[in-house]
Amino acid sequence: MSILVVGSVAYDDLETPFGKRERVLGGAATHFSASASFYSPVQLVGVVGNDFNEKEISFLKPRGVDLSGLQIQTNGKTFHWKGRYGFDLNEAQTLETHLNVFADFNPVLPENFKKSSCVFLANIDPELQLRVLDQIERPRLVAMDTMNYWITGKPDALKKILKKVEILLINEAETRQLTQERNLVKAAKKIQGLGPKVVAIKRGEYGALLFADSFVFSAPGFPLEDLKDPTGAGDSFAGGFVGYLAKHGAQMDAKHLKRAVICGSVMASFQVEDFGLDRMRNLSKKEINERFEAFKTLSHFEENLIV
Amino acid sequence: MSILVVGSVAYDDLETPFGKRERVLGGAATHFSASASFYSPVQLVGVVGNDFNEKEISFLKPRGVDLSGLQIQTNGKTFHWKGRYGFDLNEAQTLETHLNVFADFNPVLPENFKKSSCVFLANIDPELQLRVLDQIERPRLVAMDTMNYWITGKPDALKKILKKVEILLINEAETRQLTQERNLVKAAKKIQGLGPKVVAIKRGEYGALLFADSFVFSAPGFPLEDLKDPTGAGDSFAGGFVGYLAKHGAQMDAKHLKRAVICGSVMASFQVEDFGLDRMRNLSKKEINERFEAFKTLSHFEENLIV
Repeated sequence: MSILVVGSVAYDDLETPFGKRERVLGGAATHFSASASFYSPVQLVGVVGNDFNEKEISFLKPRGVDLSGLQIQTNGKTFHWKGRYGFDLNEAQTLETHLNVFADFNPVLPENFKKSSCVFLANIDPELQLRVLDQIERPRLVAMDTMNYWITGKPDALKKILKKVEILLINEAETRQLTQERNLVKAAKKIQGLGPKVVAIKRGEYGALLFADSFVFSAPGFPLEDLKDPTGAGDSFAGGFVGYLAKHGAQMDAKHLKRAVICGSVMASFQVEDFGLDRMRNLSKKEINERFEAFKTLSHFEENLIV
Repeated sequence: MSILVVGSVAYDDLETPFGKRERVLGGAATHFSASASFYSPVQLVGVVGNDFNEKEISFLKPRGVDLSGLQIQTNGKTFHWKGRYGFDLNEAQTLETHLNVFADFNPVLPENFKKSSCVFLANIDPELQLRVLDQIERPRLVAMDTMNYWITGKPDALKKILKKVEILLINEAETRQLTQERNLVKAAKKIQGLGPKVVAIKRGEYGALLFADSFVFSAPGFPLEDLKDPTGAGDSFAGGFVGYLAKHGAQMDAKHLKRAVICGSVMASFQVEDFGLDRMRNLSKKEINERFEAFKTLSHFEENLIV
């Protein structure tokens, strides 16, 4: 089952305690696609400007990413983000944001994208998320991300789109902000009341928590000795998570959802090992399977009773 | 195998967003004993003052806690701590600390305690931890806790005792403080270089990470909808962890260490459900085994490869 993703394609300037990179390919839709493509075909919808070098993104094509929904606007430049991380890699400091052509982005789906049965609405204006969803005929599975900016800036549109999605992927601080509730169990229940029956809470180095209707699942953060750049970790997580579900016919039972969270965690753990898309470029299926095994060693224990 | 524990026995005044309690029985050695006693016999070494009501701690006796090492000093009062937690329950704010008779505590072990093969040195002055260890003939397994106060105040004594222990239980912030290293993988290696081959890092609601010589293990925090008071969670964790190891002959292989971390996490998850020792008073083995099962549901996933 292929996945339609809509979101940003960007150039990033990145600074972490482990180095600096300028003008590297980034953006939520790009990171998602690079990760999800290990599991399922992807249809990318986004916009870039006249400064965009198509060669930089073309490595995704042989991996099954259809780029025919990537609009090129010749009257402006590509979305540009400049950010810095301190030793606490959980928190990015935005230094500059130039929306450029992304400011007037009007996602129009190619005809063959409208039959998508699996959709990921990356972190963009909830009004655009709604506009995308309206164009899709009969989606079976819709997952979305959002951020603090839309929670405070467009609460009504956000509530409208939340009613239409099965899965919300959101970080821990934003979970609390959206629900005005510190306790994550209570917060997840509130979100489930807004629409999405599955809530995946991303916790950076602490891993992820999944709340479904009948169970809760916790995935560890993978303890890495060398990590270079957390940019894109959340979207790589979403790529592994949604990618795995799409690969398995969008089955939403406990077995598949739990494995999907681990797939997301596996992909995020690779993503942070290098700057931009560098790790995703050279990653192999063998490495993915090995890290999946490592997640088992990290979190499984022997099963008989303890007292 | 029984466990000797040395540490504080205290009265606590507690304030959390969920209520207030005055003069409840607390202290590291008390919390440890209440938790560990579900797994192994315990020998408690500590000191209290002339205001201490022995009846309050006597519920531990039928559970196999030997209180003959609890000194009663008639010339002073019991250690008294007053603390407050905000909605971020990970961080306690100390309002008052009255060491009272604990200030001159000189731990002298009863003869029959000196043959202990399993020892937990709760968070006290590292010089006292050394003095206790010197009195024990041939300990097979020594675990310890410490805190920021000793890391900055008595670094030399701390390094001396670290050389003599197999296991350090320590919280995340103190791990970084002790090693001056933000990355926990690197920090754990530094600690292993100081002595303890096993480092259990306590992360509050995020669970615990265990670093051993040949593997790393991550235990989730248990997602609780109602928690009232985090006081004693770290010592309850230590109680389940060391208690489980003592019950199984202090075997330090991966199988036992992983299960020990889960036992610690199970006990800490109960501890925070009520104030002081209230939850530990009415806890049953059946509930412990059920929560152990819940930890499996929370963290285990199906094992075949993903891509």
